[in-house]
Amino acid sequence: MSVAFLGPAQTFSHLVAKKRFPKRKLLPLPSIPEVVEYVRRHPLSSGIVPIENSSSGMIPETVDLLLDRSFSLCIREELALRVRLALLGRRGAKIKTLYSHAAPLYHCRNWIMQRFPEVQLRRVASTAEAARLASLEPASAALSTRDAAILYGLEVLEYPVADDTANLTQFFVLGHRPAGSGARETSLAVLLKEKVGSLCSFLEPFREEGLNLKRIVSHPVMGHPNTYFFFLSVQAPNTDPRFIQATEKAKKHTWEMRLLGSYPVRRPYSS
Amino acid sequence: MSVAFLGPAQTFSHLVAKKRFPKRKLLPLPSIPEVVEYVRRHPLSSGIVPIENSSSGMIPETVDLLLDRSFSLCIREELALRVRLALLGRRGAKIKTLYSHAAPLYHCRNWIMQRFPEVQLRRVASTAEAARLASLEPASAALSTRDAAILYGLEVLEYPVADDTANLTQFFVLGHRPAGSGARETSLAVLLKEKVGSLCSFLEPFREEGLNLKRIVSHPVMGHPNTYFFFLSVQAPNTDPRFIQATEKAKKHTWEMRLLGSYPVRRPYSS
Repeated sequence: MSVAFLGPAQTFSHLVAKKRFPKRKLLPLPSIPEVVEYVRRHPLSSGIVPIENSSSGMIPETVDLLLDRSFSLCIREELALRVRLALLGRRGAKIKTLYSHAAPLYHCRNWIMQRFPEVQLRRVASTAEAARLASLEPASAALSTRDAAILYGLEVLEYPVADDTANLTQFFVLGHRPAGSGARETSLAVLLKEKVGSLCSFLEPFREEGLNLKRIVSHPVMGHPNTYFFFLSVQAPNTDPRFIQATEKAKKHTWEMRLLGSYPVRRPYSS
Repeated sequence: MSVAFLGPAQTFSHLVAKKRFPKRKLLPLPSIPEVVEYVRRHPLSSGIVPIENSSSGMIPETVDLLLDRSFSLCIREELALRVRLALLGRRGAKIKTLYSHAAPLYHCRNWIMQRFPEVQLRRVASTAEAARLASLEPASAALSTRDAAILYGLEVLEYPVADDTANLTQFFVLGHRPAGSGARETSLAVLLKEKVGSLCSFLEPFREEGLNLKRIVSHPVMGHPNTYFFFLSVQAPNTDPRFIQATEKAKKHTWEMRLLGSYPVRRPYSS
């Protein structure tokens, strides 16, 4: 019954796992493919993978796995986590080095330039890793989360960091059995026929039925350059008569259409 | 007149830069935003950024920069590089550790399981970094490129690696002035009106004119969850009367439409 997530401790995946599954055993794994593989081998387990981030867009590693023909799990739920960044360090100490992930360093570049024009920026794998490294080095700080301050014994020097619009990360909970009731959204993997306008023709029946698309991305098919899979999420359950009608028509424009899950969407957690 | 690219030496970006600009000064930079920033500050320079990879899809960091309203450069060219992986190591030595980037480790997992069932896998930032690390450790090997073998004094133990379909990576050359003649493709940044079916309505005029889309991705707008920018490439120059006709109609369904460049597409290089 354990829940695997993309580790290490205090990643956004860990924060959302703690909020959603406070009583289940949480298992950090080092990569998204390993989370999927773990769930595949343990029929009672679940896995949490990030699908989209408001600062850096769709997560290609997750899209890649969902579109893989060997993917046999279901999307059971969509979760979201709203995170504001904090500046972590030691009060009164001079800051020579600032650690963070590439996305916050990029999005807060104006604030950094004004506040710390001389600081040396160090790009690391995650905001959690940034806090860990800052905890080892006296003249350093991290753009990270408040939770990481506690874990690594740092002080919150500033929160929220100006310039930072809240980062919303969306996640899928993966498991073996389809979600039960309450589904609001459905995700599909589609291989379109190679024909001019096929994406438009595929989308037309959804517009006719008044169904909204939430996200869409084209993804190359390995070994077949210029052939594309599409991953998309439609804002309706797969039991909705309009969805059934639309997919029946849309299917004609595809070589392949796979249901990845029809699932509830939970309200965003805050951290 | 230098050409900035995503370093370090022997990354795919470096390989394609050497093929395309053999006589220009090549400048490795540590991140995609820094490549863009360098070009912005040096009016005569160019920059090479990866846009899409057949093994891991669209590169979100590049899409993010292209969609940023402050992006003021032009896409001047599309390049492509076809790379086959090689197993690098020392002939006769036992292999206990195998280094590579996450994508090759994932896509070659069946081959790895059969050939090296006991090996310890180490995920690192790039295939070039994998070769560097393998060069420091006797009982290790790397899934990397043949060029990296020369740089780091390793032997090519196997090439191409079975299970590996050639990896095609596509790049944009960025610069200050629009591409001259020979344009074949046009990329756009689009902010659609929030209305059911707006993506379909936006695409319809392109289908009417018989114009093909090459890639499309929705990208969240920072600070506005559920509002999406779209990045797309259309297979026509922006001087094509059909393109002009289509974008004029399509524009009505957008709040914003920006031309990112209309540019030639070069035939893939091999490495």
